[in-house]
Amino acid sequence: MASLQEQPHRRFNILTGEWILVSPHRTKRPWQGKNEEPSLLATVAYDKNCYLCPGNERAGGVVNPDYKAPYAFTNDFAALLSDTSTSMIEDGLLQAKGELGECRVVCFSENHSLTLPLMEVKNIIKVISLWQDEYDVLGNKQQINHVQIFENKGAIMGCSNPHPHGQIWSQSTIPEEVIKKTERQLSYWKKNNRSLLEDYIKQELQAKERIIFQNEHFVILVPYWAIWPYETMIIPKRKVTAITGLTEEEKKSFAEAIKRLTIKYDNIFQTSFPYSSGIHQAPTDGKEYSEWHMHMSFYPPLLRSATVKKFMVGYELFANPQRDITAEQAAATIRDQSEIHYTHKAS
Amino acid sequence: MASLQEQPHRRFNILTGEWILVSPHRTKRPWQGKNEEPSLLATVAYDKNCYLCPGNERAGGVVNPDYKAPYAFTNDFAALLSDTSTSMIEDGLLQAKGELGECRVVCFSENHSLTLPLMEVKNIIKVISLWQDEYDVLGNKQQINHVQIFENKGAIMGCSNPHPHGQIWSQSTIPEEVIKKTERQLSYWKKNNRSLLEDYIKQELQAKERIIFQNEHFVILVPYWAIWPYETMIIPKRKVTAITGLTEEEKKSFAEAIKRLTIKYDNIFQTSFPYSSGIHQAPTDGKEYSEWHMHMSFYPPLLRSATVKKFMVGYELFANPQRDITAEQAAATIRDQSEIHYTHKAS
Ligand SMILES: O=P(O)(O)O[C@H]1O[C@H](CO)[C@@H](O)[C@H](O)[C@H]1O
Ligand SMILES: O=P(O)(O)O[C@H]1O[C@H](CO)[C@@H](O)[C@H](O)[C@H]1O
Repeated sequence: MASLQEQPHRRFNILTGEWILVSPHRTKRPWQGKNEEPSLLATVAYDKNCYLCPGNERAGGVVNPDYKAPYAFTNDFAALLSDTSTSMIEDGLLQAKGELGECRVVCFSENHSLTLPLMEVKNIIKVISLWQDEYDVLGNKQQINHVQIFENKGAIMGCSNPHPHGQIWSQSTIPEEVIKKTERQLSYWKKNNRSLLEDYIKQELQAKERIIFQNEHFVILVPYWAIWPYETMIIPKRKVTAITGLTEEEKKSFAEAIKRLTIKYDNIFQTSFPYSSGIHQAPTDGKEYSEWHMHMSFYPPLLRSATVKKFMVGYELFANPQRDITAEQAAATIRDQSEIHYTHKAS
Repeated sequence: MASLQEQPHRRFNILTGEWILVSPHRTKRPWQGKNEEPSLLATVAYDKNCYLCPGNERAGGVVNPDYKAPYAFTNDFAALLSDTSTSMIEDGLLQAKGELGECRVVCFSENHSLTLPLMEVKNIIKVISLWQDEYDVLGNKQQINHVQIFENKGAIMGCSNPHPHGQIWSQSTIPEEVIKKTERQLSYWKKNNRSLLEDYIKQELQAKERIIFQNEHFVILVPYWAIWPYETMIIPKRKVTAITGLTEEEKKSFAEAIKRLTIKYDNIFQTSFPYSSGIHQAPTDGKEYSEWHMHMSFYPPLLRSATVKKFMVGYELFANPQRDITAEQAAATIRDQSEIHYTHKAS
């Protein structure tokens, strides 16, 4: 497959059914465009101006409790509201539908200066437990049919506050990306009576070249069809339909994988590595979804340095996603990073 | 339809078959995130360091001719190459295919300091003529089945040089976005024996609220399903399959529409308004495509000011596109802008 490292080609995303364009020879192009500001780590454990720090007042006037563990609350500027009527509006070629939902903010830690790579594994496990609770409580509500857990990390990814936190947007309709992944997994499941991702990680573990690492219960890899320069997936070895299905042992393995991967990310450009991450898992509309194999994906924008990102613009928006470095090159770069965070001295 | 201006809802994109989320109540949220640098207009008509200016040397050592009209050449760092083998590589769940193509750069003017809104209509017509020639020549090549014409404007949209220019990426496969639009137009055409967009603009001209303006041959509007804050479309009133089908009269109307729209864009935030624009039209694989109704779309990222953009991040990447201001609010804002560019004194 040497030619894939040299010649322009398209690759197929088995989870969405879409093709992406890869132009490996194009990394030689000089960059004269925009430089971003590098992402710096916050330095204080408590910031009196941060609306996410314990004890501080938020926009609506609510005061945060003096929390000492991951803490979730309803977004003060929620994009979805829980009392919206979901009626359909149809007028010729114009179709709309009211959308109901609930948006939550999840503070990963009370400590303003931490990020996932800098947190202790035992505290990342608590974040996973909170994600489980939220998925469970929101997903069990009558009108909530999908729960999207995600994190926007870094100003370059639209994050407006360095306090370690993620979000959850839950809603009455199943979003587009999840519909695609459901369809593809279901058709594979029906045909082979096996999980698509279970077969995929088996093949990747044999090929090795896109694997970053594995631990007891998870495989961490750059997917063959990655779009973002250093895109990765954390996939449980066992087909777990949703985060609530993870055992205590698996949660520990998951937390270790998140920490180890994000340390390597920070080390690539010695910066607090920006990304959007998200967990794709079974919808919560009450159907079975045996085909679903949950996974967490990371979409990081940086390409060449801490200040030069990949732009998803003209061709990417009008035609289809395009990348320069190959998935294999990206995997090798991430794999080669130290397991010790660049801000820590090796002991 | 008043409630669409207040309550969260989804809207259906008739051209792609996808839904988007609209959260109109969310514009009240304060912004504490990233500020971009405002886009400034270049001030000199010739820049000796610009590799697109007439007579200057480009990266490969080629010297630009002393051009005095729109000028196109093959991209020195092309993402697609014309001698790639298009063979399929299949290995279990890994599928790839070599992709052949040609990438072109189109300088809109020899004058470094111009942008489309500042160009004379007669010179924009020349750009349209060059787009026609390129579509024709590239599209007629045996192995080129799609020609994507686009412009990335502004550093925020990954553009590395203010010299007025766009790009063309042509290739052997039909890209994802174009496949979706072909399918939807074809099924409407088969069912109704009319163009989907012809019926759509009729309905919009009656509703009026999303129309920015119309001229003799084109309608300029914010589509009902717009994703980007000030997204617009320029649609010919007559079903024209591809840019080569435009008459001389229609080309003039098209040029006037581009100028008038982009002047209004620059006036919104008194800045050289960044965007990616692109022309969607019939593929060039030799099939008929009677269903295709060509159109030009603009995807501008700015949301609140010349320095605060909309981030398409976590929820948008993992679930589906989301916007805050409604299409109707955006249309009213663009419509209300002066027809005279902010850098020019009204006479
Ligand atoms: O070809 P350019 O202008 O160097 O590059 C720009 O446009 C391309 C096509 O949309 C993108 O792939 C690049 O990310 C962007 O920086
Ligand atoms: O909710 P936040 O953090 O203010 O907003 C951020 O995440 C949202 C969900 O991905 C996006 O819609 C916004 O564009 C982004 O700035």
